[in-house]
Amino acid sequence: MPKIVTLPGDGIGPEVTAAAVQVLREVAPDVTIEEHLIGGVAYDTHGDPFPQPTRDALANADAVLLGTVGGAQDSAWNLLPRHLRPESGLLALRKALGCYANLRPVRVQPGLEHLSPLKAELARGVDILIVRELLGGVYFDGDRKIDGDTAYNTMRYTTPEVERVAKVAFWAAEQRRGRVTSVDKANVLEVSELWRRDVTALRDRDYRGIHLNHEYVDSVAMLIVSDPSRYDVIVTENLFGDILSDLAAVIPGSLGLMPSASLGDGAGLFEPIHGSAPDIAGKGIANPAAAIMSAGMLLRHGLKRPDAANRIDRAVALALRAQPTRDLGGAADTQTFTRAVLSALESS
Amino acid sequence: MPKIVTLPGDGIGPEVTAAAVQVLREVAPDVTIEEHLIGGVAYDTHGDPFPQPTRDALANADAVLLGTVGGAQDSAWNLLPRHLRPESGLLALRKALGCYANLRPVRVQPGLEHLSPLKAELARGVDILIVRELLGGVYFDGDRKIDGDTAYNTMRYTTPEVERVAKVAFWAAEQRRGRVTSVDKANVLEVSELWRRDVTALRDRDYRGIHLNHEYVDSVAMLIVSDPSRYDVIVTENLFGDILSDLAAVIPGSLGLMPSASLGDGAGLFEPIHGSAPDIAGKGIANPAAAIMSAGMLLRHGLKRPDAANRIDRAVALALRAQPTRDLGGAADTQTFTRAVLSALESS
Ligand SMILES: CC(C)[C@H](C(=O)O)[C@@H](O)C(=O)O
Ligand SMILES: CC(C)[C@H](C(=O)O)[C@@H](O)C(=O)O
Repeated sequence: MPKIVTLPGDGIGPEVTAAAVQVLREVAPDVTIEEHLIGGVAYDTHGDPFPQPTRDALANADAVLLGTVGGAQDSAWNLLPRHLRPESGLLALRKALGCYANLRPVRVQPGLEHLSPLKAELARGVDILIVRELLGGVYFDGDRKIDGDTAYNTMRYTTPEVERVAKVAFWAAEQRRGRVTSVDKANVLEVSELWRRDVTALRDRDYRGIHLNHEYVDSVAMLIVSDPSRYDVIVTENLFGDILSDLAAVIPGSLGLMPSASLGDGAGLFEPIHGSAPDIAGKGIANPAAAIMSAGMLLRHGLKRPDAANRIDRAVALALRAQPTRDLGGAADTQTFTRAVLSALESS
Repeated sequence: MPKIVTLPGDGIGPEVTAAAVQVLREVAPDVTIEEHLIGGVAYDTHGDPFPQPTRDALANADAVLLGTVGGAQDSAWNLLPRHLRPESGLLALRKALGCYANLRPVRVQPGLEHLSPLKAELARGVDILIVRELLGGVYFDGDRKIDGDTAYNTMRYTTPEVERVAKVAFWAAEQRRGRVTSVDKANVLEVSELWRRDVTALRDRDYRGIHLNHEYVDSVAMLIVSDPSRYDVIVTENLFGDILSDLAAVIPGSLGLMPSASLGDGAGLFEPIHGSAPDIAGKGIANPAAAIMSAGMLLRHGLKRPDAANRIDRAVALALRAQPTRDLGGAADTQTFTRAVLSALESS
């Protein structure tokens, strides 16, 4: 019997995770679900944003469903030493799971183009998959320091790190439209030169059917909003991926529509990309669509149950039309939306 | 008599610079203009993208007007060792001039909202000034290497580097709406922690009238396109500024509308932010508006002639309506547009 660990975390995390769990129980009733602490609430309870009981629980998990971590910019958590802050719990979790490839699909649902800040004709039909390297680069490199009036961090990559995430991008492109855009800043950075060289070599060696091109990160930032339909799969390093995937998330019109999957050596990590939204936490009005769609990605990639995943995707698409939440200009609260998903599931 | 050095550079650089020079001669006939080489053409002539005659010419220049540098992604220049490539000429020029603050105004002209990829109601009235640190961070730090299957670059900042660019941002905000957003990734990077600390300390010490807030770069990438009117002045480090300023440039709808000024210790550097556009180079159809507006910034910031600068801005605004270029959905070529600017100047 597959075991899922849920980590609701902070802010609206518990609300949206609870909604996703209701949906999971409906489409995969045989799955065991075990809840644990992460982030600020874990620090408050255990003095550690990624505490030992949570680490232990991951040992035999098949997949992890995360809510959100962190507080407002002025939260007391942000005054803690860096390694005790909620975000550090998330980074440690990614590392512990060995999740090196973060997949963020950016899709504009037919009929929901009007939600986009982009003109409808630009938003229509957008279907991009961003593959972000998640365990390397400036995020984890140990060569980092703040000392008096100087500070530095190091962006470092090795060929094996580049290759393993590029493989995920090529594999994904094979299931899609066969195009990969690799994003770097090779006109300035040596680390991008390595990235570009290794991605190219891998394509030439193992993925000759894929059309690969290289673009600079500044240029992609522009083009992804002014001409999004030019992209199929985008692969990039950790920091560029952080920026570009949040940016691309505006295309569908609400962060509340963006799920993600982080894959790697062991159990995958599935989470909505929106933040903890402390301003609306506890009010029962958060849009749980991204968390529910993340549960769908968990079924697809984590438990290899594509039929159940497809059911969720269809039900969410129906619910978005029937009961749009406030971020989508509607009036549905978290429970109303979730009930709409559940009733769409029943009749499917 | 003030001396301006023009560096037309590569691609469409010579065409748009020639247009800007025509305009400069009209509004500032007393100025001496001297043309020199930079970028790929400089490499082709002297084996150096920033050759000695150009360096020498800068010694007694009051301001520098740059076109664009670089070729297509597959250009032979990109096969050269990094220090001989066109972009390295530009980086060396910035360094030689000590231009540490790159100012990029992002303004949507009334009546031209329809050019934006954003919905008109979001684009209307946008008026942001991005101040990008231009001589520090990962761009110039000497601690960088590619070696076999590993490579790294170092993002480094010191307090004096942070303070001098933050001063420019606070000074600019004082002339504008009094708000500065400082952008970093302080939840992950030590170098951002220093940045945030030093910007805050400077505000508390010398600019108490300014409203300062801090946002994460991934969040700003989202918000600047989904809610651009929340920003007045944005200040950020070199790499984040590269990405965000290109991104913000989509808001007005064409890179062809984006001038820039780089200020620092000596002569300022003024350039359109668009690239060399090799696909249309030599055809006489490039939009020279950004180069002409950069000449306007040169008059304002470089030669302290605000009246002449204002005349240019008004003339460009008229010409954009009378003779839009192709990138703006019109039919005017470079010369037609330039003549429209000149005739608007005559009647002003
Ligand atoms: C919270 C933060 C550490 C994290 C990141 O930068 O990876 C977040 O922005 C994300 O993208 O999941
Ligand atoms: C050409 C390149 C080196 C340059 C940069 O990254 O600074 C460009 O993108 C810019 O923004 O002026």
